Amino acid sequence: MYRTSTCGELRLADVNKQVTLAGWVQRVRKMGGMTFIDLRDRYGITQLAFEQGNEQQNALFEQAGKLGREYVIQVTGLVKERYSKNEQLPTGDIEIEVTALKVLNPAAVPPFTIEDDTDGGDDIRMKYRYLDLRRSCVRKNLELRHKMAFEVRSYLDGQGFLEVETPVLVNSTPEGARDFVVPSRMNEGQFYALPQSPQILKQLLMVSGFDRYFQIVKCFRDEDLRADRQPEFTQIDCEMSFVEQEDILQMFEGMTRHLFKTIKGIDLPALPRMTWSDAMKYYGSDKPDTRFDMRFVELMDVLKGYGFSVFDEAAYIGGICAKGAASYTRKQLDQLTEFVKRPQVGAKGLVYARVEADGTVKSSVDKFYSQEVLQQLRQAFDAQPGDLILILSGDDANKTRKQLSELRLEMGSRLGLRDKNKYSCLWVIDFPMYEWSDEEQRLMAMHHPFTSPKPEDIPLLDTDPAAVRANAYDMVINGVEVGGGSIRIHDAKLQEKVFEILGFTPEQAQAKFGFLMNAFKYGAPPHGGLAYGLDRFVSLFAGLDSIRDCIAFPKNNQGRDVMLGAPGPIDQKQMDELKIKTVK
Amino acid sequence: MYRTSTCGELRLADVNKQVTLAGWVQRVRKMGGMTFIDLRDRYGITQLAFEQGNEQQNALFEQAGKLGREYVIQVTGLVKERYSKNEQLPTGDIEIEVTALKVLNPAAVPPFTIEDDTDGGDDIRMKYRYLDLRRSCVRKNLELRHKMAFEVRSYLDGQGFLEVETPVLVNSTPEGARDFVVPSRMNEGQFYALPQSPQILKQLLMVSGFDRYFQIVKCFRDEDLRADRQPEFTQIDCEMSFVEQEDILQMFEGMTRHLFKTIKGIDLPALPRMTWSDAMKYYGSDKPDTRFDMRFVELMDVLKGYGFSVFDEAAYIGGICAKGAASYTRKQLDQLTEFVKRPQVGAKGLVYARVEADGTVKSSVDKFYSQEVLQQLRQAFDAQPGDLILILSGDDANKTRKQLSELRLEMGSRLGLRDKNKYSCLWVIDFPMYEWSDEEQRLMAMHHPFTSPKPEDIPLLDTDPAAVRANAYDMVINGVEVGGGSIRIHDAKLQEKVFEILGFTPEQAQAKFGFLMNAFKYGAPPHGGLAYGLDRFVSLFAGLDSIRDCIAFPKNNQGRDVMLGAPGPIDQKQMDELKIKTVK
Repeated sequence: MYRTSTCGELRLADVNKQVTLAGWVQRVRKMGGMTFIDLRDRYGITQLAFEQGNEQQNALFEQAGKLGREYVIQVTGLVKERYSKNEQLPTGDIEIEVTALKVLNPAAVPPFTIEDDTDGGDDIRMKYRYLDLRRSCVRKNLELRHKMAFEVRSYLDGQGFLEVETPVLVNSTPEGARDFVVPSRMNEGQFYALPQSPQILKQLLMVSGFDRYFQIVKCFRDEDLRADRQPEFTQIDCEMSFVEQEDILQMFEGMTRHLFKTIKGIDLPALPRMTWSDAMKYYGSDKPDTRFDMRFVELMDVLKGYGFSVFDEAAYIGGICAKGAASYTRKQLDQLTEFVKRPQVGAKGLVYARVEADGTVKSSVDKFYSQEVLQQLRQAFDAQPGDLILILSGDDANKTRKQLSELRLEMGSRLGLRDKNKYSCLWVIDFPMYEWSDEEQRLMAMHHPFTSPKPEDIPLLDTDPAAVRANAYDMVINGVEVGGGSIRIHDAKLQEKVFEILGFTPEQAQAKFGFLMNAFKYGAPPHGGLAYGLDRFVSLFAGLDSIRDCIAFPKNNQGRDVMLGAPGPIDQKQMDELKIKTVK
Repeated sequence: MYRTSTCGELRLADVNKQVTLAGWVQRVRKMGGMTFIDLRDRYGITQLAFEQGNEQQNALFEQAGKLGREYVIQVTGLVKERYSKNEQLPTGDIEIEVTALKVLNPAAVPPFTIEDDTDGGDDIRMKYRYLDLRRSCVRKNLELRHKMAFEVRSYLDGQGFLEVETPVLVNSTPEGARDFVVPSRMNEGQFYALPQSPQILKQLLMVSGFDRYFQIVKCFRDEDLRADRQPEFTQIDCEMSFVEQEDILQMFEGMTRHLFKTIKGIDLPALPRMTWSDAMKYYGSDKPDTRFDMRFVELMDVLKGYGFSVFDEAAYIGGICAKGAASYTRKQLDQLTEFVKRPQVGAKGLVYARVEADGTVKSSVDKFYSQEVLQQLRQAFDAQPGDLILILSGDDANKTRKQLSELRLEMGSRLGLRDKNKYSCLWVIDFPMYEWSDEEQRLMAMHHPFTSPKPEDIPLLDTDPAAVRANAYDMVINGVEVGGGSIRIHDAKLQEKVFEILGFTPEQAQAKFGFLMNAFKYGAPPHGGLAYGLDRFVSLFAGLDSIRDCIAFPKNNQGRDVMLGAPGPIDQKQMDELKIKTVK
């Protein structure tokens, strides 16, 4: 061992001990006859002191003065109490009076500063990710990730779950996103696919009687990338047998509570449950950010029929009440109008109404509405003096709700209601079984085609399939869907009917899903499960804007690892062995 | 929840409780007016009793009689003490007097019996792996795997290691085995590679100051498969900074001890250490099975020069002493001779010598050797009356040692000295840095090119590189290499010299390894690590002959998952998107 202590552990109680430390030179400060060095490792920073004096001291002093940033050194010395203590550092009461110094490795000047507040841009930090990871703010995210994964395993192991590794080289997924594929050398012209999720394998493990399965597992999707998507991502994948929806909600509410308690020290209250239709109605989103209220109020009854053609012709009119925002300036209101008109939001315009100090309401469409109607508007929101009502309308209720949802989130941010250190968790339940696809011109499975309908809605499969609700559920935290799943169909007849509604002939269903359906013939238990996105979950706990910051070696928007230089060309020899070639 | 109890938990203390169980029908036994059903789940087997009697009882009795093997059922009833108890089962004191029975799912007759001693052959069990996994002997291996992985994580977390996920989509490995590759859709003509190990990434994490890293991680090698190889396998991958070899040996000896204690209840003694050269000299193997002694004795001094040309011309003569095997029949000795002459072993013949009850030695080459010489032979082994000495010779010492090693293992097996329930662990240390490759006609890195030489051998790099020993080590248990690793080079000059001896010009070294060498310029700490093969480790603990039995969904020798039907063809559309095509 090159050290007796880490750079994070020495305290006043250690004074006068001889210690050896090793680490990186964070900073060299020369102050006349003294030189101070901050020595850094994963565990902390310890101050080293070099003072001019006798021959040996002078030699060390000179040596210390030559050290550059990020040199790796080993020092031996005595722990001493500091004259001027640093209360910011856990080791700030002491310093090391160095008696021996050895350079273990010199360092070239790094291309950016290794500080939380670095001068390095995103591109250079990704290229030198191994240096970026030295910054304690980045490393702490990965420490958190380790801790969360560890606590997930502790909890699930304690609940009798078995972690089972499923293969990475599998076959293509029917009905999924685009797969990454791997040419097989031993099976000419054939390809493995990388799993988008272990969905089918975990259901097979239930057929096998594993009863409670989980896995923290890499999954892969060859989709065009957005800020919050990576081609490889990590799921906490879970499945249970002989359970109903309530059992799953209880179990994983327990897991979430365990994480909040052990990682954040937070006693999470029982998770509220919101139906999907309420989430859409009141928040315009299936993953509402419930850190703040600001629910939608529908205004068709209040505002229609007064000659304002925009509203009179609308299929939906709805609004939100922003507490205390009546003081918004013209400029701020214009910014909001611009915000809703951005193509990403897509509204045509924004109507507002201020509640004045005397209780009267002033709106941007005053000429159409009497004060009496505006007071009805105010009552619909129970708005108080100083509040600002913001109203959107449109000819498609669902689209307008989504626009209003964006506006609500924007107002939440502007009013400081989306504090990253505050957590609001809920279950969204009763998702629809199907959603209409304009592209495919058919009903598609909203969750996946093995999701079970709610028993009371089964008769609707024949009469009104679009109205059937599923035993499907999402866990939402601060407006982020961190997990989701469903109870699966274990009855072959019901499964056939669900496929039929999806537009599959029995032959097509057999071709696409026959493998799993056949397995189910040999005694499938009732089962269900869910999967959490670990990257998102960690990001939420770390208060990050992007999942990239909690991934050690992430890929960029072109799917490239710029540090490794992957992907890259391969040898002709290897392509020949694989019996493939590239084409333009 | 479909049950109040599992099939493994009810005991006499539960008598007269009303319970609900769910599981699979293992067996139906009809005995006149009684029908007994063994109901199975992951946790055990509980007996259900159905007796004729009143109308309700008769209906249940009839229903029970119609149940087939592997039906999934739910029953409610009263826990009763059994008349004839079954001491083989933890639940064998009780049975359930069933008052309600529901078939949750019927089952087709499975293609083989779901019993430990099944009638299904390997092929059909792999095709229906989800049914094979129902057999408790198979499931127990995966339960063990879960437990071992969990305990590895507990130990390493306790020692301050961070589990960091490294990417699966990386770049090709220089100097490694064949990579699996993944065409990149977004980067035309380019390919990702799947990692053979996270070697470079874990060394980068040390450069990043992560200090203690581990990961239980899938690795991939596109090699031709043998019994004990899978295209994807799992490593316990570890790396530490500021350590010397001794620190790593201590840390992972501790981990191994923790596993033996928590999983097997065994207090493992301190691991002996054997140099690589002793392992080769005394066992002819770098992974000696030390459950039994039977060390090699070299016999050049004893047996040369008596006119037996086979020995007189040999470069190596060596033997082993099989205790108590002097009673071997002619037939048994012929079998041994055939064994060593098999092409897989490759010896030309076998000489034996028996120590008779009176102490005289009878050998198969008596006509060349006097009793006096044969007594010297006996003394060389300290052989006792009843012992059998087996001797091989050849013109290549290393090859002959390997043959003798095979013979030693064979004799160990025949004499019952390789008990799967007995464990003998050791470290093999001081591996050579280089080994000569006839194929490449150059020295190759025995471990990998970043392995550090022993400091005292560094001068030999200039004079006799083949004699340089490395700071490399393997952990061997029962003749299986379960783990291995090395201290890495952190000094750029030393690394250059090592590359030079491997025959790389500075340009070639830069092209192949420049990325890591550049990273090292920014302050690399001294570091080292090792990796365990989890599949092998679990197999050893489970006493399995093949790693396949501890993998949920293994691949066959053609790299196929016969259950999933992977690999398989992919759509032309997908190939077009990837800009690749297959060629004959």
